[in-house]
Amino acid sequence: MSVGKSAVGQNAAKRPRTARGQQTMRKLLDAAEAEFGERGFHDASISGITRRAGTALGSFYTYFDTKDDVFRALVRDMSERVRKTVGSSVGPGLSAFETEEAALASFLNFARDHKEIYRIIDEAEFVDPASYREHYETTATRITARLQAGMDKGEFRTGMEEAHAWALMGMNVFLGLRYGVWSDDRPAKELAAIARSILEQGIAADSHSQA
Amino acid sequence: MSVGKSAVGQNAAKRPRTARGQQTMRKLLDAAEAEFGERGFHDASISGITRRAGTALGSFYTYFDTKDDVFRALVRDMSERVRKTVGSSVGPGLSAFETEEAALASFLNFARDHKEIYRIIDEAEFVDPASYREHYETTATRITARLQAGMDKGEFRTGMEEAHAWALMGMNVFLGLRYGVWSDDRPAKELAAIARSILEQGIAADSHSQA
Repeated sequence: MSVGKSAVGQNAAKRPRTARGQQTMRKLLDAAEAEFGERGFHDASISGITRRAGTALGSFYTYFDTKDDVFRALVRDMSERVRKTVGSSVGPGLSAFETEEAALASFLNFARDHKEIYRIIDEAEFVDPASYREHYETTATRITARLQAGMDKGEFRTGMEEAHAWALMGMNVFLGLRYGVWSDDRPAKELAAIARSILEQGIAADSHSQA
Repeated sequence: MSVGKSAVGQNAAKRPRTARGQQTMRKLLDAAEAEFGERGFHDASISGITRRAGTALGSFYTYFDTKDDVFRALVRDMSERVRKTVGSSVGPGLSAFETEEAALASFLNFARDHKEIYRIIDEAEFVDPASYREHYETTATRITARLQAGMDKGEFRTGMEEAHAWALMGMNVFLGLRYGVWSDDRPAKELAAIARSILEQGIAADSHSQA
């Protein structure tokens, strides 16, 4: 999996070679986000994308061959933007729990700013199952690496693996759906603190705590 | 929300009045599960459903008006079957943590036996957003009730609410996707024990445990 290498996978699109080309590609992807997010894959159209982007139809075909193509590139692009946004919110100065908390808060804010992300990635399950799977698998791989880092530092208990990462990812995705996309009424920090408390202490009453 | 009342909501279908009618309705819903699960909403057809069910086309129209109608009924039916399956795996004899563990194990087994469930409920996000939302909202309400029961018994820490329920639901849904639908290679019990351990003790190293 080479999602990390560029905003757009090699097979999904022809890569722009100039700064101007990169700008046009960015405009097309942003327009695709709006078009697919609003209309869904089936009703979305290439001309709808270029109209929103304010580019000529020819520019579209410089970078993409088909509607499937731009959709696939968009899923990778959104996946990559989540990675970058979350990545820039964490850093070596944070403890392992602070890292999880900051990662979720930044993901919730991203979901609020890009409410289409769920619709787009979820629609990939039908339109492009490989991209759907890749998005979650690469995300789980990143979370597994964060767990490993926390174990190495002695902050997280040892023995955790992929299944723990999927559990954490599910927590974050569903908090993002409920409190990022469906409603904005609770501060992202408050929700991130709730998730952190589950990770830090579990949900047992004090009297029940592990021996 | 009245999902609990019957396998099929009042607006989604005409209810069968006889045992034989119930049997036909069940056959049609099972056939719809296979048809929508395999072909997706757009490619699925009413004649495909009746062919799989081995019923006459007229029987279909006794209970449903349209393809949308039977799809909506199917989402409610699957949601209700999850509720019943999970509900019958837990009981008053279990501790609050045993209840969460048993609920997840039984959900994982259900997902393995009904791999179409994710495709169908996820497609509702596009075909019938109200059903999609209702499925997760009613599930979250049930989990919130289980959390409350555990708090009342003094096993769970107090102060938990809807957000904690969404976090738990996300954990379960993603473990079900990865280890129920995508692969069967790990025992459901093992995964349920992992999720339980996160709830029971969190993921902190012993030295980090709460003061």
